[in-house]
Amino acid sequence: MNQTQVLSYVADLFTEKMPFNKMLGLRVTKYTTDAVEVSFDWKDDFIGNPLQKILHGGVTSSVMDVVGGMMAVGGMLDKAEDTNETTFLNSLGTLGTIDMRTDFLRPGRGESFVASARLIRTGNKVCVCRMELHNEQGTHIACGTGTYMVG
Amino acid sequence: MNQTQVLSYVADLFTEKMPFNKMLGLRVTKYTTDAVEVSFDWKDDFIGNPLQKILHGGVTSSVMDVVGGMMAVGGMLDKAEDTNETTFLNSLGTLGTIDMRTDFLRPGRGESFVASARLIRTGNKVCVCRMELHNEQGTHIACGTGTYMVG
Amino acid sequence: MNQTQVLSYVADLFTEKMPFNKMLGLRVTKYTTDAVEVSFDWKDDFIGNPLQKILHGGVTSSVMDVVGGMMAVGGMLDKAEDTNETTFLNSLGTLGTIDMRTDFLRPGRGESFVASARLIRTGNKVCVCRMELHNEQGTHIACGTGTYMVG
Amino acid sequence: MNQTQVLSYVADLFTEKMPFNKMLGLRVTKYTTDAVEVSFDWKDDFIGNPLQKILHGGVTSSVMDVVGGMMAVGGMLDKAEDTNETTFLNSLGTLGTIDMRTDFLRPGRGESFVASARLIRTGNKVCVCRMELHNEQGTHIACGTGTYMVG
Repeated sequence: MNQTQVLSYVADLFTEKMPFNKMLGLRVTKYTTDAVEVSFDWKDDFIGNPLQKILHGGVTSSVMDVVGGMMAVGGMLDKAEDTNETTFLNSLGTLGTIDMRTDFLRPGRGESFVASARLIRTGNKVCVCRMELHNEQGTHIACGTGTYMVG
Repeated sequence: MNQTQVLSYVADLFTEKMPFNKMLGLRVTKYTTDAVEVSFDWKDDFIGNPLQKILHGGVTSSVMDVVGGMMAVGGMLDKAEDTNETTFLNSLGTLGTIDMRTDFLRPGRGESFVASARLIRTGNKVCVCRMELHNEQGTHIACGTGTYMVG
Repeated sequence: MNQTQVLSYVADLFTEKMPFNKMLGLRVTKYTTDAVEVSFDWKDDFIGNPLQKILHGGVTSSVMDVVGGMMAVGGMLDKAEDTNETTFLNSLGTLGTIDMRTDFLRPGRGESFVASARLIRTGNKVCVCRMELHNEQGTHIACGTGTYMVG
Repeated sequence: MNQTQVLSYVADLFTEKMPFNKMLGLRVTKYTTDAVEVSFDWKDDFIGNPLQKILHGGVTSSVMDVVGGMMAVGGMLDKAEDTNETTFLNSLGTLGTIDMRTDFLRPGRGESFVASARLIRTGNKVCVCRMELHNEQGTHIACGTGTYMVG
């Protein structure tokens, strides 16, 4: 598999093979070794406040963690492009979130949402990603920073 | 309503009136103005890893945010015990998570889980809570710190 | 005082009237209501590692907190431009860091350093700033997020 | 060297061989593989606010980072007790703070201060520490969480 094929395989893994992500209805709308975008539509199941129709903070954190984790894989792939696909896919077993900070900037109102991530630093053991969540009108709902184990 | 009745009302609000929490199957197993415990059972929907049966990081973050938010309400109630119930329940409208850090300490394996929170500091505008997640065997799966707007 | 004069007054307050910042040798090299830059030169006093000549993590965190706090003041000023200077300068009494995350990306080597901040969100009570630290060669040494009380 | 001698060597390294810690006047008042306490006295150099005699947030963050880093070394030592001292002291070269969160709970007033840390999780590559800062009257001034690279 070339890089594009591996990313496509990983996108499928995250959106189709992880039940919680499937329940959230996540779609990968961009995925390179430099940038990831994951989109999802409003569902009433996401309500986290009995008085207002806004996203539960846990939905926000969940999506941020996913998009950050996918970005971490992108960084691993970028560093590992010589190795063969089996080795690389096995190395995904080491992937894990070490810690994450989410800043809830504005109420999570909207019909659809885009979460994006970029790499701030990649190392052999740990990488750091920066994540953002916007709604369909470009309102900046949340941002976050995640540290991921990658080796 | 006395303090106990208000807490019972708030517990119901969090577990029955917020669809995302209902989907997670959260049960309030302890709720005073000093401590909160929320329990939930494993569901295959929570899988966040195609290779291992462990909690999605987003489930962990979601539950931590809920238990921290409930603790923040407990702190508000403790400070506001003179005011009448209508005033207090209205004041819940200002409640919101400002930011949260989650540390993922160990893989989220287990049959049932307990998330707990305690107040580290309460102020008139902002409070800080410390949260923990353990499984039924006492394994410490995650911890976190959340800052909440309370006034 | 107009906005520029207030910012100049505040810059002086941070660099000349706070002994710890004076010890760090901080200079304000840019200050608008949108962006802040603070520069400082290497000193052997900053060594935080007996084996390597790199910045103590505490120096990094200190400078990030300063530049974020100055940015928070910039945001307060931008929101408050109608009020007179006395009112505004009094309102600085409410300024305080609520919490801060620092990510240490690379060893803090360099001859001089630039810390910068920008506002991610401003509210009436709380604002969120994003900070970065680079050395004179453009190496990205650290980044961070700070939540500040502003009202 | 036995464990106690190594810890005593490391304490000296942190307080005597790191100029920034020496400037802060840090003293190690407790150091086992389970717990660390570092004390320091008020100095006017620490003022971080022109109007009030309170600790600069950077002093708080600096001390938290030190006590967390020392705790990380304690955890490394506890895991590595079979290896000889040269190997262990060399392994200190990998020690580094990955990220840290500080919560500023109350104004940093006091005549002397105690920062303490405990391990929340130790692994082969990364450990997580929880830190606290109190003054001589027991006022809880700040807390924090740090993730450290240990292998």
